Amino acid sequence: MAKRGEQDTKKEKGGQTVYFKSRPAIIGSYSIAGEKEGKGPVGKYINNVVNDCLFGEKTHEMSEQKMFEHAISGAIKDAGLKPNQIDMMLSGDLLNQIISSSFAARSFDLMFVGIYGACSTMALSLAMGSVMVDGGFVNNAVVSAGSHFATAERQYRYPLELGNQRPPVSQWTVTGAGSIVLSNKSTAKSPCVTAATFGKVIDWGVLDVNNMGAAMAPAAAATIIAHFRDTGRKPSDYSHIFTGDLGKLGEDILRDLLAEADYTLGTNYSDCGRLIYDEAQNLYQGGSGCGCSAVVLNSFIMKKLRNGEYKRILFVATGALLSPVSSFQGNTVPGIAHAVVIEC
Amino acid sequence: MAKRGEQDTKKEKGGQTVYFKSRPAIIGSYSIAGEKEGKGPVGKYINNVVNDCLFGEKTHEMSEQKMFEHAISGAIKDAGLKPNQIDMMLSGDLLNQIISSSFAARSFDLMFVGIYGACSTMALSLAMGSVMVDGGFVNNAVVSAGSHFATAERQYRYPLELGNQRPPVSQWTVTGAGSIVLSNKSTAKSPCVTAATFGKVIDWGVLDVNNMGAAMAPAAAATIIAHFRDTGRKPSDYSHIFTGDLGKLGEDILRDLLAEADYTLGTNYSDCGRLIYDEAQNLYQGGSGCGCSAVVLNSFIMKKLRNGEYKRILFVATGALLSPVSSFQGNTVPGIAHAVVIEC
Repeated sequence: MAKRGEQDTKKEKGGQTVYFKSRPAIIGSYSIAGEKEGKGPVGKYINNVVNDCLFGEKTHEMSEQKMFEHAISGAIKDAGLKPNQIDMMLSGDLLNQIISSSFAARSFDLMFVGIYGACSTMALSLAMGSVMVDGGFVNNAVVSAGSHFATAERQYRYPLELGNQRPPVSQWTVTGAGSIVLSNKSTAKSPCVTAATFGKVIDWGVLDVNNMGAAMAPAAAATIIAHFRDTGRKPSDYSHIFTGDLGKLGEDILRDLLAEADYTLGTNYSDCGRLIYDEAQNLYQGGSGCGCSAVVLNSFIMKKLRNGEYKRILFVATGALLSPVSSFQGNTVPGIAHAVVIEC
Repeated sequence: MAKRGEQDTKKEKGGQTVYFKSRPAIIGSYSIAGEKEGKGPVGKYINNVVNDCLFGEKTHEMSEQKMFEHAISGAIKDAGLKPNQIDMMLSGDLLNQIISSSFAARSFDLMFVGIYGACSTMALSLAMGSVMVDGGFVNNAVVSAGSHFATAERQYRYPLELGNQRPPVSQWTVTGAGSIVLSNKSTAKSPCVTAATFGKVIDWGVLDVNNMGAAMAPAAAATIIAHFRDTGRKPSDYSHIFTGDLGKLGEDILRDLLAEADYTLGTNYSDCGRLIYDEAQNLYQGGSGCGCSAVVLNSFIMKKLRNGEYKRILFVATGALLSPVSSFQGNTVPGIAHAVVIEC
C-alpha cells in the first residue's frame, strides 16, 4: 500500500478512490416514484408521485421507461437548461439489456453511455458522469437510474399474477427513477461531487437470491473500508453516510462488518432501502432496486444537501450482480458497491 | 453548429467527438474464439481458438465467462504487466445483467465498471477506458467485450434444441471475447487511442428482430457522419474504417446512407461481421454479437496496427438495443454506434 497522498494519477497508488478537483456541480435533480414510495417517509420530498403504476402506458416496462424520461427532463429543467445544452446521458437500470434507459434515450438527442451496476447504478452513473465532466470531456451530463416493482418481479422472480408468498428476508423493488445534471459550471449552492470510490466485485458465496442484503453487505463494507483507507477519513467526517438498498438485515450485517474493521457506524448512517418505506407498510427488509437509492438521493438527501443541513455525504449504492440464469445454474450472488462523495 | 476548432471541452461544441491528447496506448491485446471463428478468414490471427464450445465447463454461460477471464488475463500478460498493476476493468456483454463480465470480474481484484452497449460494447469500453486514462484517473485499464453463440440464441431467440430455421437476413453470434490493456505509458510501437465519437440512440422503426443490420446501419451512419463533421476528416484519411457487425445487408445500407451524405466508402471500409466468416461457412449475413468486433479488433486489426500496415483506423462498433421483452411488446429495435480512432 502506498502512503496516503502519494498520487500518480487522480487516485492514490493501489487505491480505489478518484478525486474530482474541479468539483462537478449537481445543478439539477429530479425524482419520480410510485404510490407506495409516495406514502413512505421520503414521499413528501419526491418531485412527482405517480399513483398509477402503469403511468398511463400499456405495460409496466413502458411505464418504467416513461419514468426515466420524466426524471431526465425534470432534472434538465431543474438545472435551468434546455436538452440541447446537455452533452451526454449516462444511465442504467435493472431490465435485461437496460431497455428502460436505452429506449428513454430515444427521446433525447444526446450521446448515450449505457451503464450496468445493478442497484449500484445511481452511484456508478454519477461517478462516471463526474469523470466525464472533471476530465474535461463534456460540460454537462445527465445521469440516471431507476426501477419498477412489476417489471423487476416479472423478470427476476415470478409473474405477479402467481401471487407468490414473499420470504421474510425479501425486499420490495422501488418503482421510481432519479436523475441528476452534472456541470462544470456551478450555480449558487450547488452540491458538488468531489470523489468516487469504485467498487470491486465481492462474492461471499450467498446462494439465496431473496437475501440481497446479505449478498451486498460485504461489497458495501469493502468499498467503505477502501474509501476510508484511501482518504484517511472516518465515519464522523461525514454529515451522513447512505447505503443504497441493503435493507434492515443487510444494514445490520454492514454495521457488524465495519465494526470488525474498527469503524463504528453511528446514527449518521442510514440505508436508503430502510428509509424509503414505513414499518407499517410491512415490506419486510425494505426497498431495493436501482430506483431505491436514486429516488432517496434525489428527494430527501438532495433537499438536505441543498438547504445546507448536510455538508458532506458518502453515497454508497450497492448492487447484486446475479441474473435468473446464473442462479438457476447454481451460481452465487456477487455484489458490488460504488461510493460517491457529495459536498456543499 | 459551432465552427470546427471552437472547443470549450475536449470536444467541439455541439459535437460528439472527444479527443484524447495524451494518447492512451494499447499495450496489451488478446482474442479468444470458437471453432467456427477459428476456421474463418481471421482465424489465424486469433490468439486462442477453443474448439470445445463448452470450454470444459458445464454450461455455455460458464464457457462465455471463462473466455472473458482468458481474454483479460491474456491482454494483461501481453502488456507485460501483473494483474495488480491494472487499476480498473471496464467490460460488458450481451447476457442479461452482463453476468459474463461481472462474474469474470470476480477473478480479478480490480475496480469494476459494467458497461452495456449491446454489440457496440468493445468500442464503448475502449472509449470509456480511454476517458479514464486520458482524464488522469487511472494508469492502466483493461477493457473487454465478448459473446457466445449458444448463450445468445437461448436468451434472445430459441433454445438450440428446437433446431429453428434461420431467416436469410440473420447473422451468427460470434463465440469469443477480446480484451485490451490501455495505459498512460506507451511501449514501443503501441497503437494509441486518439479520439472517440460517442453515439446517440437512433431508431428508424425496424421491427424485424432478425434484421439487425438494418436496425444498426442508421446508427452507424449517424456516428460516422458526426465523426467526419466533428473532425473535418473524410474516409480517405483512414487506412481502414471498420464497422462492428452490420453484416452484408447492413454494410450495403451503410454505404448507401453515407453516399447520400456525400461520403463514399471505398475499399478501405470493411464490416467485422462480414470479415469474420468465410462465404463457404454459409452463415447468411455474417457474424454479430459483442464478440464479433472484439475478436476482429484484437486479432486481424491489431496485427496490422502493430506491424505498421495501418496508420490510423476508425473502429465503429454497432449495437441493437432491443430485448426479447421490448420486441414482444411491439417495440422497434433502436441502434447505437460508438467510434474510436486508433493510430500508430
